[in-house]
Amino acid sequence: MAEKTFVIAQGGGPTAVINQTLAGAIAEIERRHPNATILGSRHGVRGIRDGDYVDFSDVPADRLKRIANTPGAALGSTRDKPDRAYCDVILAGLKKVKADAFIYIGGNDTAGTQQILTDAAGGAMTFVHAPKTIDNDLVENDHTPGFISAAEYVASAFKSVDFDFRALPGIYVAIVMGRHAGFLTAASAAWRDDEDDGPHLVYVPERAFSVPRFIDEVKETMGKYKRCIVAISEGVSAEDGRSLVEHIVPKDKLEYDAHGNVKLSGSDLNAALEKALADGLPGKRARVDALGYMPRGYIGSINQTDAAEAFEAGRFAVGVAEDGGGSVALQYDGTRTVLKKVPLKNVAGKTRHMPDDFMVAGKPVVAQPGLDYLRRLIPPKFETGRPFV
Amino acid sequence: MAEKTFVIAQGGGPTAVINQTLAGAIAEIERRHPNATILGSRHGVRGIRDGDYVDFSDVPADRLKRIANTPGAALGSTRDKPDRAYCDVILAGLKKVKADAFIYIGGNDTAGTQQILTDAAGGAMTFVHAPKTIDNDLVENDHTPGFISAAEYVASAFKSVDFDFRALPGIYVAIVMGRHAGFLTAASAAWRDDEDDGPHLVYVPERAFSVPRFIDEVKETMGKYKRCIVAISEGVSAEDGRSLVEHIVPKDKLEYDAHGNVKLSGSDLNAALEKALADGLPGKRARVDALGYMPRGYIGSINQTDAAEAFEAGRFAVGVAEDGGGSVALQYDGTRTVLKKVPLKNVAGKTRHMPDDFMVAGKPVVAQPGLDYLRRLIPPKFETGRPFV
Repeated sequence: MAEKTFVIAQGGGPTAVINQTLAGAIAEIERRHPNATILGSRHGVRGIRDGDYVDFSDVPADRLKRIANTPGAALGSTRDKPDRAYCDVILAGLKKVKADAFIYIGGNDTAGTQQILTDAAGGAMTFVHAPKTIDNDLVENDHTPGFISAAEYVASAFKSVDFDFRALPGIYVAIVMGRHAGFLTAASAAWRDDEDDGPHLVYVPERAFSVPRFIDEVKETMGKYKRCIVAISEGVSAEDGRSLVEHIVPKDKLEYDAHGNVKLSGSDLNAALEKALADGLPGKRARVDALGYMPRGYIGSINQTDAAEAFEAGRFAVGVAEDGGGSVALQYDGTRTVLKKVPLKNVAGKTRHMPDDFMVAGKPVVAQPGLDYLRRLIPPKFETGRPFV
Repeated sequence: MAEKTFVIAQGGGPTAVINQTLAGAIAEIERRHPNATILGSRHGVRGIRDGDYVDFSDVPADRLKRIANTPGAALGSTRDKPDRAYCDVILAGLKKVKADAFIYIGGNDTAGTQQILTDAAGGAMTFVHAPKTIDNDLVENDHTPGFISAAEYVASAFKSVDFDFRALPGIYVAIVMGRHAGFLTAASAAWRDDEDDGPHLVYVPERAFSVPRFIDEVKETMGKYKRCIVAISEGVSAEDGRSLVEHIVPKDKLEYDAHGNVKLSGSDLNAALEKALADGLPGKRARVDALGYMPRGYIGSINQTDAAEAFEAGRFAVGVAEDGGGSVALQYDGTRTVLKKVPLKNVAGKTRHMPDDFMVAGKPVVAQPGLDYLRRLIPPKFETGRPFV
């Protein structure tokens, strides 16, 4: 019997633990098939298209172990979202290396690619989607590898800056990654202990955002606490459903990615919020920052549960590859996280939003069910003392 | 003999470990004088002016222990930089509570306040400056409490984002706090292992900054490595000595703090750098972020050496208070950090810059003496693996 060949790739935004999933998949393939060929495709499916592979038989075990503990996608990533024609090219590439299975680690777009490939291949090989996203927006999943570390970073960041602003009061706004789902932005509130702890206002994509209402809410908070800490998703949208960025940036200056999504990062949103605060609360110290890339890869505080789950998801993906393909899902059985195989079509291209009851109705405040969910994933970690001011 | 009275306050920007210094001072006073009165002045010298104190005899030991491990200034802080008249008011306030000594934790402006108070008091009580600043810009000090944690955050952040940009190439610029001294920005390079590791370009206030040269250097780096990671101090200045912010922001929109310093934060610098990159390297993915407040207070990765040194600096300050007053300095004897009492006038209002040999001549690159210094303070901590791209 010919030895098996597995191809692995990483897609979309890197995370703190996506390399754990890579390492887990390799470990499991080697356990099941000591003589298998394991090829890593560089920069997602581009490597398959271009024949650009890492042969993992050349990679020493200790390097792989170190890579598992390294944030970022070690194989490189891509934002390419292949259509059917691109998928035919990928399929030809996979056939060329005699692949038996292709494991693609990524989010819902990645699952979409695997769905198209599955349909195109007609059973010639298997396709597996291993989950990864700090947005936590995959349906069928309780949470996704990468989210816990990112959420812990965001909770830590807001706890830290709240202490800073107790000492030197003012208004602080931090923009958090998240186009359609507010889980990561909501994590800013996970470790609030007291009524007056920041963040005081949390704006998520699931709720329409209005600048005048925002200014009113900041004013009200300043009146109560003399400081105001705000978490806002980069993807918040106005009542008309268009993103705030689209409202703020002149039409001819908007930028789009390969998926046709408008580019949400950049300092336009910062500047617009700064201006709104300067106009609405003149003379008040106000600072608008973006947390930027830190939540998805800050090496100083990678969560070990997240790392372990990501590794196990990679191992589980190999079983799914040998069982007809599909998507790996992290579900919760009421006591612990369990891995399940689910159909690719259930996950592909779909976005999971925060349940409605995660936010207080009519207020930019995370509600108890949301806090309960977040604290299950990131239990409070630091024994801080209440300041004297 | 009447029991002694100590007043303690915190000034300037908070740090991750400034509360350790507070806790250290209180612990040492209690050890030496179990019945002493210890008053914490809220928001720096404002609390003395307004009679707004915390009496630490009312604070349970376990709360104080938790506060020591909490970033931010637990007593509150202030940016006030008192002149002689303000100092007379402070002196009257200190006399009112029968203070024997006033320990003020802060940077060079704080030392300046203590110098004025010493001169005004004429020996009636003692004044101590306990060091604190993430800028690391106090003369007489090898390094300052708060710097190590901040430097470790910055080194971790750049290591993390470099992995992110290997996976999805582009240009990344992060603005780092630092008005006059580049130590913290230089820390971005502390953990570079290989020639191609980021940050590739490091711009500090000690070197004149030119936008055209910056664009050339980014272009050159992109040509070599297909990505370019840049660390830039918020305080970088052009050839004429004026800060970049002053060059960029219209004169009537510049903001100033109570010390007459131009406000360096805000999104103007981000926007200007983004525009320069978009014009100079059209079509290239470029992102400009500010690390903002995270280096000075991120709770997720507080350095324990820094915490211990800050605590000891607080304890040592009590000895200085009973020995005529002065400034506490952290010096290096070639093997370890040692605490010394130095005259307030040596530190007050002065700025320590990076030694000239910390940067490569004519290049925005940290030189070996700078790396040696930084790696002594923050030894590389993470065993990362080299990515495949």
